[in-house]
Amino acid sequence: MEKENVGFVTDVSKTIVANGSHVCVGLDSDYEKLPEIVRQGKGLAEAIVSFNRAIVDSTHDVAAVYKLNCVFYAAYGIEGLEAMRQTVAYIHEKYPDMKVIADCKRSEMGYTAELAAKEIFEQFGFDAMIVTPWFGEDTISPYREYPGKAVIVLCHDSNPSAGQVQDLVLADGRKVYEQVTVLAGQWNTTGNVLMEGPLTYPDVLQRIVEIADADTFFLVAGLGAQGGNIDDLAIFKGRRNFVVNASRSVIFASSDADFAQAARKQVEEYNKLIADLLL
Amino acid sequence: MEKENVGFVTDVSKTIVANGSHVCVGLDSDYEKLPEIVRQGKGLAEAIVSFNRAIVDSTHDVAAVYKLNCVFYAAYGIEGLEAMRQTVAYIHEKYPDMKVIADCKRSEMGYTAELAAKEIFEQFGFDAMIVTPWFGEDTISPYREYPGKAVIVLCHDSNPSAGQVQDLVLADGRKVYEQVTVLAGQWNTTGNVLMEGPLTYPDVLQRIVEIADADTFFLVAGLGAQGGNIDDLAIFKGRRNFVVNASRSVIFASSDADFAQAARKQVEEYNKLIADLLL
Repeated sequence: MEKENVGFVTDVSKTIVANGSHVCVGLDSDYEKLPEIVRQGKGLAEAIVSFNRAIVDSTHDVAAVYKLNCVFYAAYGIEGLEAMRQTVAYIHEKYPDMKVIADCKRSEMGYTAELAAKEIFEQFGFDAMIVTPWFGEDTISPYREYPGKAVIVLCHDSNPSAGQVQDLVLADGRKVYEQVTVLAGQWNTTGNVLMEGPLTYPDVLQRIVEIADADTFFLVAGLGAQGGNIDDLAIFKGRRNFVVNASRSVIFASSDADFAQAARKQVEEYNKLIADLLL
Repeated sequence: MEKENVGFVTDVSKTIVANGSHVCVGLDSDYEKLPEIVRQGKGLAEAIVSFNRAIVDSTHDVAAVYKLNCVFYAAYGIEGLEAMRQTVAYIHEKYPDMKVIADCKRSEMGYTAELAAKEIFEQFGFDAMIVTPWFGEDTISPYREYPGKAVIVLCHDSNPSAGQVQDLVLADGRKVYEQVTVLAGQWNTTGNVLMEGPLTYPDVLQRIVEIADADTFFLVAGLGAQGGNIDDLAIFKGRRNFVVNASRSVIFASSDADFAQAARKQVEEYNKLIADLLL
């Protein structure tokens, strides 16, 4: 059955072509790590939003999509969360073609998942949210009902201990994450259920891509500071249905006054390397 | 090795004895479901806090601990989150012996887990947080370093589709949640790593309790509106190291002016039933 990838997937796919980029810029804008020039004379929320605006203004025409890991904001309480809300609103207002992913790794189910959708999609205005699959289909069903929004299933993560649960071997010889990838495919009844896999474990990423339907859209984690090797994106040769996240290596490319230009330069460099790999 | 259950576990264990209660009152105080008498003439945050204060004032000497599912607050954005912060602060200020659990089902790892700890423990003041084990030990290690705080591992949840991943059968014939329970036990190097299991799946709950060390402290989910059978708590006969959560059946026991007294009455009824089972 042909699924109609409305909304998020269609829009990001257009931006990938228009901007010549598969790069998801991770706005993990930890206040304590912002350049001194951005922080001085400003309150916490103002400094974070000011930093994000500069990064977005400088990268909106060379990046594919943005992602905010919500804990970088929530760690600073109500004021940090207000900075998160303002950042998403700014991107949508100024660059309506650019979509924004909430890296919130939510694990709610049924009615509480409906509430999480209200939080992430309505209150904070995100276009997509990342969820963990630990609770089965109940944990994604309320999100896929939102017109134009997307839900991204974390099939396997990029952290060192991810394999303790995700790589457990099942009775039929497959690993847990492989079955979760099969399930995530079955849950994708609407075309807006995406999958996330790790560049830091290229064999795992390749397996996820092999198992998934050809029209599945992927978020790849772990480029840059997390240590993923960009060359391993060659498994997407000839395909356009993925974005790869880079956070610190882009937004903290420089800690001086040229931080926004340095971020753009780093994204452009990734774009060129990835374009060569996909030829 | 004897572990020293400092902080959360010790304090809740004292309250269980002092108040004669194993009931965790879930303050899932959905604004739209609050009694009309509470909402009228008040703003959103004011109404939620007012409701919670009344419930807490009425139950603090008959309950064991409180739990707030964060999405019931976050669904109302910044104002809802402010109500959450004020609720936790109120409980700590007025009833310093009562501890408060964040039902946030966080799934962060390493540095982002440190940020989640700042959010939940420092910014919002909770004493314990619930996490999903999907990412392995990285996902709990920063929390167990917090003196006096606790981390609760969701070994198996109470929702209908929980088994899609948690009940997968491993090569050695055990299920995924059984190995996760073993891991959670190994992660409990500090005595402040707790386990959560479902009253809605009594066989699963029994297995988790069998696998865990005798000194493990349990949070049991699913009493009341979720349909768990209170009689199944008999597996804790002769033990004191557990609390069982009830939310809607307590806080929405009445929608009239007597809602706080009705909540107390429901908790007292649970206390009596549970005490009889544990004799």
